[in-house]
Amino acid sequence: MTTATGAHATAMGSGTVGSAFLRACMRLPNEFTPVWFMRQAGRYMPEYRRIRAQYTLLEICRRPDLAAAVTLQPVRSLGVDAAILFADILLPVIPLGLGLEFVRGEGPVIHRPVRTKQDVQALPAVHPETDLGYVMEAIHILRGELGQVPLIGFCSAPFTLASYLIEGGPSREFTHTKTMMHADPEAWHMLMDRLSNILADYLVAQIHAGAQAVQVFDSWVGCLSPQDYQAFVLPYSRKVFQAVENLPAPKIHFGTNTATLLELMKQAGGDVIGLDWRIPLDEGWRRLGEDVAVQGNLDPAVLLAPIPVIRLHVEDILRRAGGRPGHIFNLGHGVLQTTPVDHLKAVVDMVHEYGS
Amino acid sequence: MTTATGAHATAMGSGTVGSAFLRACMRLPNEFTPVWFMRQAGRYMPEYRRIRAQYTLLEICRRPDLAAAVTLQPVRSLGVDAAILFADILLPVIPLGLGLEFVRGEGPVIHRPVRTKQDVQALPAVHPETDLGYVMEAIHILRGELGQVPLIGFCSAPFTLASYLIEGGPSREFTHTKTMMHADPEAWHMLMDRLSNILADYLVAQIHAGAQAVQVFDSWVGCLSPQDYQAFVLPYSRKVFQAVENLPAPKIHFGTNTATLLELMKQAGGDVIGLDWRIPLDEGWRRLGEDVAVQGNLDPAVLLAPIPVIRLHVEDILRRAGGRPGHIFNLGHGVLQTTPVDHLKAVVDMVHEYGS
Repeated sequence: MTTATGAHATAMGSGTVGSAFLRACMRLPNEFTPVWFMRQAGRYMPEYRRIRAQYTLLEICRRPDLAAAVTLQPVRSLGVDAAILFADILLPVIPLGLGLEFVRGEGPVIHRPVRTKQDVQALPAVHPETDLGYVMEAIHILRGELGQVPLIGFCSAPFTLASYLIEGGPSREFTHTKTMMHADPEAWHMLMDRLSNILADYLVAQIHAGAQAVQVFDSWVGCLSPQDYQAFVLPYSRKVFQAVENLPAPKIHFGTNTATLLELMKQAGGDVIGLDWRIPLDEGWRRLGEDVAVQGNLDPAVLLAPIPVIRLHVEDILRRAGGRPGHIFNLGHGVLQTTPVDHLKAVVDMVHEYGS
Repeated sequence: MTTATGAHATAMGSGTVGSAFLRACMRLPNEFTPVWFMRQAGRYMPEYRRIRAQYTLLEICRRPDLAAAVTLQPVRSLGVDAAILFADILLPVIPLGLGLEFVRGEGPVIHRPVRTKQDVQALPAVHPETDLGYVMEAIHILRGELGQVPLIGFCSAPFTLASYLIEGGPSREFTHTKTMMHADPEAWHMLMDRLSNILADYLVAQIHAGAQAVQVFDSWVGCLSPQDYQAFVLPYSRKVFQAVENLPAPKIHFGTNTATLLELMKQAGGDVIGLDWRIPLDEGWRRLGEDVAVQGNLDPAVLLAPIPVIRLHVEDILRRAGGRPGHIFNLGHGVLQTTPVDHLKAVVDMVHEYGS
């Protein structure tokens, strides 16, 4: 444990690491618990809605100046301890040529879903560093603007990206995805191999461009049994983490509904494992072991309640974390659109002031 | 453990209980593992689609002759070890006067959702035995037709019914539900109290009418943290189970995404706890303890794969059950619409023939 932390610390020159967020990723002690929120830039903020009134989601993602501006909004208005690049986990679908569109009220639609071995073989080569060059450019701009606040880059995990490609959009049952997995494992493994290479390159490029930490979102992997995760997902997620293993940026591995997958997700990789609210933070951390940091785990829906109720939930999480080095406060999933900005600000303050 | 089984056995005259399904509910040994499927009567069957072409879902539910006919279809064509009454968990919404409709392609819609304390107070009194008398009539007909095959009655658990009432239909995030829970706990507790009384009466009426076992569906409760389950749900589910505790029909307690709720669900009640595929059957059973039976837990999506692949998954579950008394084979959730009938038949045979 000490060795692992030590290795990290050396690679990242932790002697001088001042960021509470980066220190927590490395399980170094902090004077307060760092906090940021998944989807902290988004529709719940008036300043974001003003930009969205003029540009589509994809236009913002593809214009580095706009992506950077939106990324900075919650850093300035909430006082969070990390920025997360404004982007979408589906951006790699654009160079894959599958017809990505965001349809109002329906979310993402992929017009030419991938369902067969032939579909997989027909996928073009993707070079994220250039094909998604606007992401790297946004990272460059942000590093110039953010000062001491660290910037988190991110990508989808291979499973979650595959599920969108195969279903053609969001899904409740993931039947097409699971059918390819079970009925055509050759096509499945070929697809996951392709996606994990692309995502690995994408993550490497983001770190080279200046991302100081990275999060891998396996948002929908909780629809699988542990047996299926192990056979059909783990090797590919591991490949993504191995590609960035020796690069000086901590890695966060996130999913939802993962109470029975946590140990396997840790095997796949990550210095920090994301927990959702379905598992009490102390129980999740105990199951994972002390040699890994944890991030989480407030139910985003609690933020719609009055502040005194929110406080009870926030303090319960901090009490379960027990002040041990290696806890990053976050939600168990993204900020909901109807969340009052004031409530998020209040949470930042509660977390920073807890125990002081 | 022996005492509990003994009490049950006496109450139900188990000396003469011939049904493998009922014996498994009571953790009595069997020569083969009994099997049935949630949503075993439904659109995947041609004979069901023929009836649905002439009648709406609610018309079938409300005409005892049709509900009985549909209930019998899978018993005859699949050879399952139990029948489950054809009905919908939302039927109690009809006497509640909230405007239930099934909209093609969208599922259930409740036109006047319950969002405030005033909405809760305005709910009319419901007398399930008469208001849902057609359900009891279907049970009467079925007991005459089914012979040795036991009939399972069912209802929603209070939480899952409340979630539909509050959201106005199915939901991904359950934000309105959780908001009432956290922001207006008085309205929440009043609603859950009302619903648990109605559901308790409904279940009692079904057992009096002849249901030989009952299943309580808490299908969506897995969206909650264990802490919220304990404070806002458990007491009301318990009330439903307590109402039928001394009636001679085993009780099954079902949910999905419940890996971290299992122990609490057992506390709420049930002779049998349902497991979904997200937890390996042996691990779930170990966590629950041997003093309860388990039901599950094949991923319904696996049934879309070729039969040899299905066999691997079925045998893995049976191996994990290890032939211990008290396992009922089932899916982890309902049969999917695109499931081939042959595949379900094959599963029934695999389960019955396993180990012989």
